[in-house]
Amino acid sequence: MRFDIPVPVSFIAGLIGAEIVGNKDGAAIGINEIHKVENGDLVFVDHPKYYDTCINSAASFIIINKETDCPDGKALLITDEPFEAYLKIVNHFRPFSPSMKMISDSSSVGENTVIMPSAYIGNHVIIGDNCIIHPNVTILDHCIIGDEVVIQAGTVIGSDAFYYNKKTARPIHYKKMASCGRVIIEGCVEIGANCTIDRGVSADTIIGAGTKMDNLVHIGHDTVVGKNCLFAGQVGIAGATTIEDEVVLWGQVGVSKTLTIGKGAVVYAQSGVKDSIEGGKVYFGSPVEDAREKMKEFVWIKRIPQLWEKVMGKK
Amino acid sequence: MRFDIPVPVSFIAGLIGAEIVGNKDGAAIGINEIHKVENGDLVFVDHPKYYDTCINSAASFIIINKETDCPDGKALLITDEPFEAYLKIVNHFRPFSPSMKMISDSSSVGENTVIMPSAYIGNHVIIGDNCIIHPNVTILDHCIIGDEVVIQAGTVIGSDAFYYNKKTARPIHYKKMASCGRVIIEGCVEIGANCTIDRGVSADTIIGAGTKMDNLVHIGHDTVVGKNCLFAGQVGIAGATTIEDEVVLWGQVGVSKTLTIGKGAVVYAQSGVKDSIEGGKVYFGSPVEDAREKMKEFVWIKRIPQLWEKVMGKK
Amino acid sequence: MRFDIPVPVSFIAGLIGAEIVGNKDGAAIGINEIHKVENGDLVFVDHPKYYDTCINSAASFIIINKETDCPDGKALLITDEPFEAYLKIVNHFRPFSPSMKMISDSSSVGENTVIMPSAYIGNHVIIGDNCIIHPNVTILDHCIIGDEVVIQAGTVIGSDAFYYNKKTARPIHYKKMASCGRVIIEGCVEIGANCTIDRGVSADTIIGAGTKMDNLVHIGHDTVVGKNCLFAGQVGIAGATTIEDEVVLWGQVGVSKTLTIGKGAVVYAQSGVKDSIEGGKVYFGSPVEDAREKMKEFVWIKRIPQLWEKVMGKK
Repeated sequence: MRFDIPVPVSFIAGLIGAEIVGNKDGAAIGINEIHKVENGDLVFVDHPKYYDTCINSAASFIIINKETDCPDGKALLITDEPFEAYLKIVNHFRPFSPSMKMISDSSSVGENTVIMPSAYIGNHVIIGDNCIIHPNVTILDHCIIGDEVVIQAGTVIGSDAFYYNKKTARPIHYKKMASCGRVIIEGCVEIGANCTIDRGVSADTIIGAGTKMDNLVHIGHDTVVGKNCLFAGQVGIAGATTIEDEVVLWGQVGVSKTLTIGKGAVVYAQSGVKDSIEGGKVYFGSPVEDAREKMKEFVWIKRIPQLWEKVMGKK
Repeated sequence: MRFDIPVPVSFIAGLIGAEIVGNKDGAAIGINEIHKVENGDLVFVDHPKYYDTCINSAASFIIINKETDCPDGKALLITDEPFEAYLKIVNHFRPFSPSMKMISDSSSVGENTVIMPSAYIGNHVIIGDNCIIHPNVTILDHCIIGDEVVIQAGTVIGSDAFYYNKKTARPIHYKKMASCGRVIIEGCVEIGANCTIDRGVSADTIIGAGTKMDNLVHIGHDTVVGKNCLFAGQVGIAGATTIEDEVVLWGQVGVSKTLTIGKGAVVYAQSGVKDSIEGGKVYFGSPVEDAREKMKEFVWIKRIPQLWEKVMGKK
Repeated sequence: MRFDIPVPVSFIAGLIGAEIVGNKDGAAIGINEIHKVENGDLVFVDHPKYYDTCINSAASFIIINKETDCPDGKALLITDEPFEAYLKIVNHFRPFSPSMKMISDSSSVGENTVIMPSAYIGNHVIIGDNCIIHPNVTILDHCIIGDEVVIQAGTVIGSDAFYYNKKTARPIHYKKMASCGRVIIEGCVEIGANCTIDRGVSADTIIGAGTKMDNLVHIGHDTVVGKNCLFAGQVGIAGATTIEDEVVLWGQVGVSKTLTIGKGAVVYAQSGVKDSIEGGKVYFGSPVEDAREKMKEFVWIKRIPQLWEKVMGKK
């Protein structure tokens, strides 16, 4: 999440009750998680395993639960509960204050765009020209929709990330990571009926220009989809994944989190992608392999009885 | 389904045109199917295969299409068409009489709960405090939602059970089992966008406290989900299944009906659970096996060509 | 798509700027794609590979980008861009002019049919008697719903076909094939919550009488489903497929495009049907095989280590 204007680190420290070590005079431009963090951002870390990564990341301001050395020009904000501090910052700068109108007064809708009945357009949403937003679509706060976009009925854009912190000591084990990111849908994208595209936790979920999705497709938080991709019905993509341009995913394909699918890859129906795969190739299986190798495997399996007979003397 | 007050068995017999054998003076507290039946309940049976199970179940009143011996203190209600009798009872005590307002006057909404635009709240729904019900959500009659529950946009709570009686003799083969059960969602549950949770046929579908579900998840009728479970996107669970506490189901997992998944089990993405599995273990495959055993199987399959060459002398 | 009245071919030629070769005096009754074309129809073809098939199909009028011989009684409409000509014809006879009311004045709703709040009924929709259309359902223009049909909440009927022409030379690779077909749902059908049924591209998607679908089911454009079928939750069927009567598809089954599943076939959960399969049999696997053969395969795979030990002397 980018703040509307840079926010003095001293204000942030006051808000979350933290002590500042290092550069006390800086101003933060936003807050992000470690995968998406940029220069000028706040980041938070509460697990020793990730201390070094966060301190040495692009982030300028690190909310941390241990006093340690601070690199030149950066600041550490020391507090016992970095996760709670993150929630406080999000709630302060992006408070949940939902529009109770079907189309929020703070949203902006382009020329020749049709918003059909019972479509909900939240606060600060921007929709481009020549779009069709079908009935019963929900577009939540801060999402951005380009020109010539079609969203079929019942689809949800900007639902919260499925992202929880585990606290098994408590009766309720999972504490929600508040979502303050957006969904950005570029021009000429078409999204089928009853799809769901989650907003980024603190960065953006992006659907590249010209990409087309069939019905009941799920796209997780912070996932970045390239241009001119084709996703068939019931495809599901987990969070923080990168799908490069011109990738084709056939029906019911599942893609795991944080991986990359290279440009132009084709994945056959019902396959499962659990690690990054190169572009320009065709894949099949759960987990996926090169499609032709996978097909050969089916033939080899059928030969086991023949092998058995030869070796064991009988079936 | 529990009646509002106990109903004399003589009234029920009159309603369905049945003859009473046994205890003519009792009163029924509700009606349930055989899997969920309790002491004081009505149950119905029309197939000789299930006569004994129903007569000897906890049910106090058995609607049956054959005159037979009645255990002490119970009553048989003899009628040619027990299934039609069941439908008559449901239609009498839970007539379909949908609210035509977006929020029914007979529903109750707790403090600080936000109901966003175009969300539909049916008759006799009870929603707790501090909930967020997002746009275009549908919560149907008699469902109960606890405190601190979040339901993302487009989700449907309390759709009818997918449960039909087969009558192949008729041009239309399937006759619907009317759903008179509820969905009960306990506190601190979060449900993603465009999910569907069916009501119980005559008992309740229950989602335990602290459980979190991602988008496009389907939960069948009468399924009972424990506390602090995590279900990733596009998981599907059939009817009358028991998922114990702290179970984790990754994306696109499918779970068959009437089985049990033990406490703390983890099922990897795209797996299929067709029989009950023990808790505390990790599973993979369709159908599932121990995940490590399944992984080894992938290695063994890759060795078939080598075996073939050794045995057959060439590939 | 059938025109309201037969349209002189000379009018069509003028509309799309084509030259007529052959029968200049005919009138077209509709426009269809090659799989669905009937006598009296227009069809279009822009790829030499399909010239002969289209010219020799049942179509009476062929929009084509090459001057060639015309069979007696037919007409060729010669134009450089047949695909653009198709779009012009669809936009002329079925312009996108969405109703901005929740229930369009041009729709027709039968006796005792209940349309619940926030359900959208588009232009020229016809709904029969004794139906229940639940909240937040979307039924788009020209769809036809028979008697005694139940559509659970959140379902979308008549979303656009997922059908694009690839034009890789352009920055946006895919150009949408405008959908002018319908969805026809016959009597006594029940459709679960948050399902999606796409309209035909130029013909009709049909759901046969008595068929029942669970939640989150996807049916592609131009697919024809027979009578008394049962589809469990999260089934996905691609476009232009034929499912004969009494077919049972269990949960999360995927079915590829343009194939046929024979009468009474049963396909077990999570299977993938990629080619046509015969009726009256039971299938399992992805891709599917005879279910019993597939089960045996699982047993054979488990025997590989034993084979290996015998042949190689050790595991």
